[in-house]
Amino acid sequence: MFSVTTEYALRVMTALAMSPDNLVPTGSLAELTKIPSNYLAKVLQQLAGAGLVTGRRGVGGGYRLSRPAANIRLIEIIQTVGSLQRITTCPLGLESHGPNLCPLHRTIDRAAQTLIELFDGVTLQNLIDDPNSPNRPLCETVTTVPLTMNGVSH
Amino acid sequence: MFSVTTEYALRVMTALAMSPDNLVPTGSLAELTKIPSNYLAKVLQQLAGAGLVTGRRGVGGGYRLSRPAANIRLIEIIQTVGSLQRITTCPLGLESHGPNLCPLHRTIDRAAQTLIELFDGVTLQNLIDDPNSPNRPLCETVTTVPLTMNGVSH
Repeated sequence: MFSVTTEYALRVMTALAMSPDNLVPTGSLAELTKIPSNYLAKVLQQLAGAGLVTGRRGVGGGYRLSRPAANIRLIEIIQTVGSLQRITTCPLGLESHGPNLCPLHRTIDRAAQTLIELFDGVTLQNLIDDPNSPNRPLCETVTTVPLTMNGVSH
Repeated sequence: MFSVTTEYALRVMTALAMSPDNLVPTGSLAELTKIPSNYLAKVLQQLAGAGLVTGRRGVGGGYRLSRPAANIRLIEIIQTVGSLQRITTCPLGLESHGPNLCPLHRTIDRAAQTLIELFDGVTLQNLIDDPNSPNRPLCETVTTVPLTMNGVSH
């Protein structure tokens, strides 16, 4: 449904939310999220530019969330790297109509509103605390958790 | 919210639905939908490949819907040119989890499901018959309707 960049941004933020007390090295992030290193660097740059993550270069460096996971809603991440916005004016640029959308664009706008509300209601912490799932975010299995934790903490 | 191609495909199909009794010349379609000619040709090719439109080349040629507008749901158009699909298996490819989505991807899948249901419930005819809108689809104004109708009917 989302662009690759949006999907990757959500994975990165979720991965960082799972290690709130550490700077997570980019190598560990790439391994955990299955994002190619070059692509990961670009996504992290966008997220850092928006103030969602904080990074430190060099030995012992890495990234962490700039705010607690409970204070970061998924919609913020999606709108930072993607284009999920309400339609406020006719996309065909007809000045005579402006904000009075036709039925086609009103339908699309209704969908955008629904999505925005849905992702506005979910924080990164909600993903981690989800009581309905036997799986941790990013589909970690029991056998991969120890490996991941090692990668994250060193 | 959608890709440019999806937005354009919806415009084209809506424009054709407004002239159910005519082959609409591509020049008229481009004018009505504000889509660049080269891009329009590609979108029409995709829609024709999916059996949603039928075309005839040459003088007097153009395109029309393959079925009545009341039988074409917006979701068909969106899924023909875009990627709005349910998530049926872990996007990270972890075999041990497969269809048991983690909370992140379950949330994205819920959004996809919501959108699919929304656009599955709207036909092209619904857009034209919408009783709540003073505007015809594609934001036509009163002054542009005569021009458009001329373009479509010749």
